[in-house]
Amino acid sequence: MHKLVLIRHGQSQWNLDNRFSGWADVDITEQGMTEAREAGELLKREGYAFDVAHTSVLKRAVRTLWGALDAMEMMWLPVHTDWRLNERHYGALTGLNKAETAEKYGDAQVKVWRRSYDVPPPALERSANEAVHDPRYAALNPGDIPDTECLKDTVARVLPYWNEVLAPAISAGQRVLAVAHGNSIRALVKYLDGMSDEAIVELNIPNGVPLVYEFDDQLKVLRHYYLGDAEAIAAKAAAVANQGKAK
Amino acid sequence: MHKLVLIRHGQSQWNLDNRFSGWADVDITEQGMTEAREAGELLKREGYAFDVAHTSVLKRAVRTLWGALDAMEMMWLPVHTDWRLNERHYGALTGLNKAETAEKYGDAQVKVWRRSYDVPPPALERSANEAVHDPRYAALNPGDIPDTECLKDTVARVLPYWNEVLAPAISAGQRVLAVAHGNSIRALVKYLDGMSDEAIVELNIPNGVPLVYEFDDQLKVLRHYYLGDAEAIAAKAAAVANQGKAK
Repeated sequence: MHKLVLIRHGQSQWNLDNRFSGWADVDITEQGMTEAREAGELLKREGYAFDVAHTSVLKRAVRTLWGALDAMEMMWLPVHTDWRLNERHYGALTGLNKAETAEKYGDAQVKVWRRSYDVPPPALERSANEAVHDPRYAALNPGDIPDTECLKDTVARVLPYWNEVLAPAISAGQRVLAVAHGNSIRALVKYLDGMSDEAIVELNIPNGVPLVYEFDDQLKVLRHYYLGDAEAIAAKAAAVANQGKAK
Repeated sequence: MHKLVLIRHGQSQWNLDNRFSGWADVDITEQGMTEAREAGELLKREGYAFDVAHTSVLKRAVRTLWGALDAMEMMWLPVHTDWRLNERHYGALTGLNKAETAEKYGDAQVKVWRRSYDVPPPALERSANEAVHDPRYAALNPGDIPDTECLKDTVARVLPYWNEVLAPAISAGQRVLAVAHGNSIRALVKYLDGMSDEAIVELNIPNGVPLVYEFDDQLKVLRHYYLGDAEAIAAKAAAVANQGKAK
């Protein structure tokens, strides 16, 4: 039996400010760091160990990983970073307050932008897209750098990372910890659980809670579950769902 | 022209306590964290950028790397960790105070243990060697886990990492940052600079100061230099040299 542990980064400053983050490189808050350490302590207490860690190239995910590794006394794990695990690119909504955007465009429109499977938010102008000049994306084909993404677009770039990197590692017996983002995790979960385009709309991933997938030898999902207190996790996921509503 | 930047970890708790650390997994102090961040800020100010980071599996090196990456705004670098970059294994001296050991055995004997090229300190009993049961060394051939090491032994395991990992990466154009330890860096410097077994005895590596090597296309060393204030660096190196003297 194989396992994969996924963690959405701890609370970021823009989670706290209720702003769309996407590829903006926002750091985590003190609460986010506490969530990261608690995730690590929980994994350690439950006897989890890992051979390798994967994360995005965004600091809120990297710092969450660092906090968890520190708490697990596993700072010696190698760390692979890849843009394919980044948060969904939020296009021209990046940096805007979610509630204010909902007041302006309506709750329904914001829910479409936040959660519809195939409707992307308005795109950034390429000239306004900072990722194009960011050294961390220098090795990418410019056409791979998005100006906006719907979840379908995120799935399209997360899946190759699953197929080419994560799945072979897990099949080979490596115990993998991956720290990523609300929508890169939703993209992976949609694929692993075979969720419909409609069902995925209602799925919310709480910050800083280890999500465990168990697989058979063919990497068919046997089951998945969050570690920790179920009530607290449900409250966290509900809070994520409500972020996009006008006050 | 190719470059490699080496950094010895920032001050550790046992640097402060003047104890032999070796493979004991001692953390860095607040001063060590400041040194790590200052090293990163200096590299950033001087325009350095990197494609990949390498470090040991000991947390004083990993945390120093994290501090430097944070200060450089390069937390997204992939991090390779390898036991071959570990500090020299100090055998049965691990954990002992250097000055007290010098009072007991004499300054000359301690200098031999600290700095002679081919005389190892007394070995640990294998049954007392915690590394044998440590998951971070689980993939090693048990015969590769030392019970003690002289610098010659450290050279023998650092060089394969240079030849098989670092040198090919540098040759391929990767900009490499490596955070390691006093003696794993001395081992590499001895090789790169073709230093004699005698000359290496007097070489001391200061904590937290970027050491830059420049190479031609055949990886012949063109020159090397520390970044930062020369006087402060010399004072740090002298302090390292004096650690093994009775008070």
